[in-house]
Amino acid sequence: MNVIEVPDADDERLADYVRLRDVNLRKSLEAEHGLFMAEGEKVVRRALRAGYRPRSLLLTERRAAALADVVGTVRAPVYTVAESVAERLVGFDLHRGVLASFQRKPLPGVDEVLAGARRVVVLEDVVDHTNVGAIFRSAAGLGVDAIVLAPRCADPLYRRAVKVSMGAVFTMPYTRLDDWHGGLEGLRERGFALLAMTPAPDSVTLAEAVGDGAGKYALLLGSEGDGLSFRWMDQADVRVRIPMAERDVDSLNVTAAAAIACYELVVNR
Amino acid sequence: MNVIEVPDADDERLADYVRLRDVNLRKSLEAEHGLFMAEGEKVVRRALRAGYRPRSLLLTERRAAALADVVGTVRAPVYTVAESVAERLVGFDLHRGVLASFQRKPLPGVDEVLAGARRVVVLEDVVDHTNVGAIFRSAAGLGVDAIVLAPRCADPLYRRAVKVSMGAVFTMPYTRLDDWHGGLEGLRERGFALLAMTPAPDSVTLAEAVGDGAGKYALLLGSEGDGLSFRWMDQADVRVRIPMAERDVDSLNVTAAAAIACYELVVNR
Ligand SMILES: C[S@@+](CC[C@H](N)C(=O)[O-])C[C@H]1O[C@@H](n2cnc3c(N)ncnc32)[C@H](O)[C@@H]1O
Ligand SMILES: C[S@@+](CC[C@H](N)C(=O)[O-])C[C@H]1O[C@@H](n2cnc3c(N)ncnc32)[C@H](O)[C@@H]1O
Repeated sequence: MNVIEVPDADDERLADYVRLRDVNLRKSLEAEHGLFMAEGEKVVRRALRAGYRPRSLLLTERRAAALADVVGTVRAPVYTVAESVAERLVGFDLHRGVLASFQRKPLPGVDEVLAGARRVVVLEDVVDHTNVGAIFRSAAGLGVDAIVLAPRCADPLYRRAVKVSMGAVFTMPYTRLDDWHGGLEGLRERGFALLAMTPAPDSVTLAEAVGDGAGKYALLLGSEGDGLSFRWMDQADVRVRIPMAERDVDSLNVTAAAAIACYELVVNR
Repeated sequence: MNVIEVPDADDERLADYVRLRDVNLRKSLEAEHGLFMAEGEKVVRRALRAGYRPRSLLLTERRAAALADVVGTVRAPVYTVAESVAERLVGFDLHRGVLASFQRKPLPGVDEVLAGARRVVVLEDVVDHTNVGAIFRSAAGLGVDAIVLAPRCADPLYRRAVKVSMGAVFTMPYTRLDDWHGGLEGLRERGFALLAMTPAPDSVTLAEAVGDGAGKYALLLGSEGDGLSFRWMDQADVRVRIPMAERDVDSLNVTAAAAIACYELVVNR
């Protein structure tokens, strides 16, 4: 049986789970081992269903039965720990009581991700994991075909992004460009119209830009602070805005802008 | 001159700013004194512009000049502190370096908030301050006329909500119902069609429900976990969905749903 009680937070076998809120530590630890964390029963189930291979599972005593039906089918160790051990280990009260460490898979190539796709979202330097996760959730929920990330966009498999996405990061096909400067050309060559999303009032409205929605579209979204780079703005076919009211609000949050743009492009056409 | 250097984090005069991440402490402290916190230069300026009365301002040494143009016009004390004092006081690295404590105003009545309004958002038990703030930002940015909160909806003037809203909580007219059970009747009596937003597949699509957008509409949005209560669902005129793709995603985040619904209702009509 692969269920193992571990009494001590310093136990080597729990090393994947240390200090989950220490962003710098976690980034280097996860990169080094090629792992990512999933939190909460629903999200862990979705990672398993999507074919990710668990390195181990961690359940608190109170939730020891949470994954009873899958524990037998999983080849990884399942550690159970007291609530207090979990708290010491991860650094906060793990009230959901279910965590798992998964092995990452190699990202697919751009060709693979875009094969057959007609509506894609492209994130330039979105830095906030909550925003990345929420955009994956909306894009998946609304039926976008794929997501492409610029080299410096935040990691969709970081714990917070995974959690906010409700697991959509597992099912939504996505990849990352290695080339920021020339990366958009590949999309254009594959027939995508490049729509640079920006609140700038001299741009075309979303409804106009999308027209009858018959073509292939890539929605480009920029960072929380400065928006899209000049380079990408320049490379795009058209600058597109969601019209704003005059209300002392300069722009929408990137998650809200993404949701509206996906809706207009996918659902409304 | 009202600029005062304070060398000690335990100084009584800084009491409004203690332990900003301690949610329970902050809730009771802010309720007791009827205050709220604004963070960052832009947001503090917006609160001042919206006519909120500051109790005090707090600047770190590095940002001591940040509000130089308004410091003279403000009647409240302006405390400057060393970076290390700020960190000990608020409990984290205050890298924006600008905080202010403001006096709340009494909330307007429902009549006042709805006078002349045609499109309003009604939040039932949205509990996450990030979501509440983001919804205010979208609603203001897209031109919704007012927001109405159920008795248990999270506080828009809580620091995190203020920050995420980018100050939209200061300009967007809003109020809170005292009566959850019967509160929607007041909206109906004032001529609003009540649209209960829900992912349920047997509901009417958003585009259909809004039609030509000629009437007065109230968009009802529910909590992050369970969505709208049965009571409110039942009281509504129609249950309305944003159509979802078949993708192992059950629902949109409430912020995304709100953004899309406001867009369809206000911008697209
Ligand atoms: C917070 S905004 C960035 C604001 C930045 N100051 C700018 O002007 O782009 C983040 C991203 O959301 C998208 N966005 C925000 N508001 C938008 C609007 N009204 N229309 C189109 N896109 C918008 C853009 O892609 C933008 O890069
Ligand atoms: C995370 S959802 C709640 C999910 C909950 N299980 C339900 O079925 O309502 C939070 C709120 O967002 C809104 N919402 C989310 N997805 C929606 C969709 N596809 N259509 C309409 N409203 C939606 C609803 O108002 C809902 O109460």
